[in-house]
Amino acid sequence: MTAPPAVGLGVTLSVLAESETASAAQVVPSSPVGDHTSIEDVLAFARRCDVVTFDHEHVPPEVIAAVQDAGVRVEPSPDALLHAQDKLVMRRRLTALGIPCPDWAHVTSRADLEAFGRRVGWPLVLKTPRGGYDGKGVRVVTGLDDARDWLEAVEAVEAAGAGGTDGEHGTTMADGLLAEAMVGFTRELAVLVARSPSGQAAVWPVVETVQTDGICTEVLAPAPDLDPELASRASESALRIAGELGVTGVMAVELFETRDGDGRPAYLVNELAMRPHNSGHWTIDGSVTSQFEQHLRAVLDLPLGSTRSRARWTVMGNVLGGDYPELYATYRHLMARDPAMKFHLYGKDVRPGRKIGHVDVSGDDLDDLRARARHACDYLQGVITE
Amino acid sequence: MTAPPAVGLGVTLSVLAESETASAAQVVPSSPVGDHTSIEDVLAFARRCDVVTFDHEHVPPEVIAAVQDAGVRVEPSPDALLHAQDKLVMRRRLTALGIPCPDWAHVTSRADLEAFGRRVGWPLVLKTPRGGYDGKGVRVVTGLDDARDWLEAVEAVEAAGAGGTDGEHGTTMADGLLAEAMVGFTRELAVLVARSPSGQAAVWPVVETVQTDGICTEVLAPAPDLDPELASRASESALRIAGELGVTGVMAVELFETRDGDGRPAYLVNELAMRPHNSGHWTIDGSVTSQFEQHLRAVLDLPLGSTRSRARWTVMGNVLGGDYPELYATYRHLMARDPAMKFHLYGKDVRPGRKIGHVDVSGDDLDDLRARARHACDYLQGVITE
Repeated sequence: MTAPPAVGLGVTLSVLAESETASAAQVVPSSPVGDHTSIEDVLAFARRCDVVTFDHEHVPPEVIAAVQDAGVRVEPSPDALLHAQDKLVMRRRLTALGIPCPDWAHVTSRADLEAFGRRVGWPLVLKTPRGGYDGKGVRVVTGLDDARDWLEAVEAVEAAGAGGTDGEHGTTMADGLLAEAMVGFTRELAVLVARSPSGQAAVWPVVETVQTDGICTEVLAPAPDLDPELASRASESALRIAGELGVTGVMAVELFETRDGDGRPAYLVNELAMRPHNSGHWTIDGSVTSQFEQHLRAVLDLPLGSTRSRARWTVMGNVLGGDYPELYATYRHLMARDPAMKFHLYGKDVRPGRKIGHVDVSGDDLDDLRARARHACDYLQGVITE
Repeated sequence: MTAPPAVGLGVTLSVLAESETASAAQVVPSSPVGDHTSIEDVLAFARRCDVVTFDHEHVPPEVIAAVQDAGVRVEPSPDALLHAQDKLVMRRRLTALGIPCPDWAHVTSRADLEAFGRRVGWPLVLKTPRGGYDGKGVRVVTGLDDARDWLEAVEAVEAAGAGGTDGEHGTTMADGLLAEAMVGFTRELAVLVARSPSGQAAVWPVVETVQTDGICTEVLAPAPDLDPELASRASESALRIAGELGVTGVMAVELFETRDGDGRPAYLVNELAMRPHNSGHWTIDGSVTSQFEQHLRAVLDLPLGSTRSRARWTVMGNVLGGDYPELYATYRHLMARDPAMKFHLYGKDVRPGRKIGHVDVSGDDLDDLRARARHACDYLQGVITE
């Protein structure tokens, strides 16, 4: 999705692709195949670039450091990116900055978890600091037994000493676990911000992200009936996080909307993502500058574009794969049914539950837009047949 | 510019490129190099495609016929496309359909031109039926002397007999010349229409095209202060031409706005272009469905998208090359000056007067939009320096 705005901006892209059939390789002429966890592969790729950036957070910090050491510009920097790669690092930093977060603790033993559970109550949320996404590496636990395997893995690493290797569990549990209190939230929100190396920054309107089974299925832009004062505070926090962490490019700040002790709307930061993010896909059609164009402008230190909305409302619906592998007939039907709907297919094989595309619809009637987006996604997934 | 919408639609493009550094080859992974006038090159290319279409009208009819004979779908068909390749064929057909055209004559001799000049008056417009674009192959002549070289070429072909070769003048004058009366127009307009093989068709709002030295420099969408009844008639004519000629894909109908005998607004058809056209570049940012997405939908016989405007006004400014080959500094300055401006660079080397990109700005204040687009184009061309 970064390829389309690169055309107009005159930016030549090159993508380190995981395979010759990867989505990006289908649309970017220069798409060498390589392993993003290999220093050798990434360095060979990076040496041909003016700036290197990321479309996921899974490039290991030591690989990114090697690119930077080779004198190639990396945006965001490994120091900034670490806050999106390691949830424990993120919680420590945001707490130090006074940004509202759920109550949390660093857990390296059964005793740690037991103490935290006693303090905040069960169930609580346990996360592996690294490597999680879309619900993976996150678990709601009602007691110590639910966390037995993770705790054993963590205690084994601890027993091997501070310098111990990560062993069979990879890097995900080398620093223990992150425990967080369950948050009684009213809904989930997200703020998308972009910041350039020069320090220019811009936010898009706060959106509502609707989750189903831990996966975002719908984004409403802007978040309906959002308290303007809360929207303003959340936007300021996103800009402050971007500045304090030295973020460059696009960052999504995922929020829980809650109520404070007096019943007034409040928020807590859930996660950070430092890249164009699913919660910002609506901007492709709904904003003067899409998050993908803005990410390019930001990492190239070009002036940022306007984040004004093109319409009163834009609704984004994620298209999940169904049982039927061929989308063409459904897609054709939907195009005829809704000429104003914008389709974005990702060139991925259809697998049940996999995000394979999204649709955007913009207009003045939010209920109508939601119904149309919902219908299209259900129809493409095969949940409904007319 | 067709590459960006192909990404979202999941359409795999392949381009027969004139060179490895061609604009399209920079952004389309499959871009074999070949000569669009070579049957062999075009056939080898076409055999790998489901549908073949065009981004200019200079592929010779016999080459297109060969592709069709090989069983590959060609949209638009050679029969339809001929009306955009040969101005004489176009004039004959439109006149037969009762579509308003300037007074015209087929000229194959000095005597023909003299008679036409006597009838409609001098100066008049002389055109080579084939091969012209952007003012090339078009000449305003004040008398026979201004047309001496063209007339000699035409008479030489005539003297060689009906089966004579085209000789050194190529195909452009094999069928004589097209003479047209000078039209006293108030401004130039264009209607963009798309039609699919199934017969579905859609028009965008009628636009005003502002020409400077025979080259379009600015497009105002919609055409300001246009008589609604004229807009409706012009749109109907464009749809009728598309239907009668069996056009598939996007067609631009270029018009002169005139006054009829009673002083009421009227129009005459100037030219046809069967492809996404400069007069429709505003749709990339100003319309729910851009002409490039619509062209893909149409030639693939997918349902057409909405042609509704995203804003009250969109102004497109063509960026012409200036003396200074490097755009980066000016481009960067303009991005900072106007965060809502959309830049579209074509990846072409800068040469004085060459179209190397365009800008789009959308909003409610037409004068403001025109001033911003004008400033950006002048600044990029080096005509102004602040």
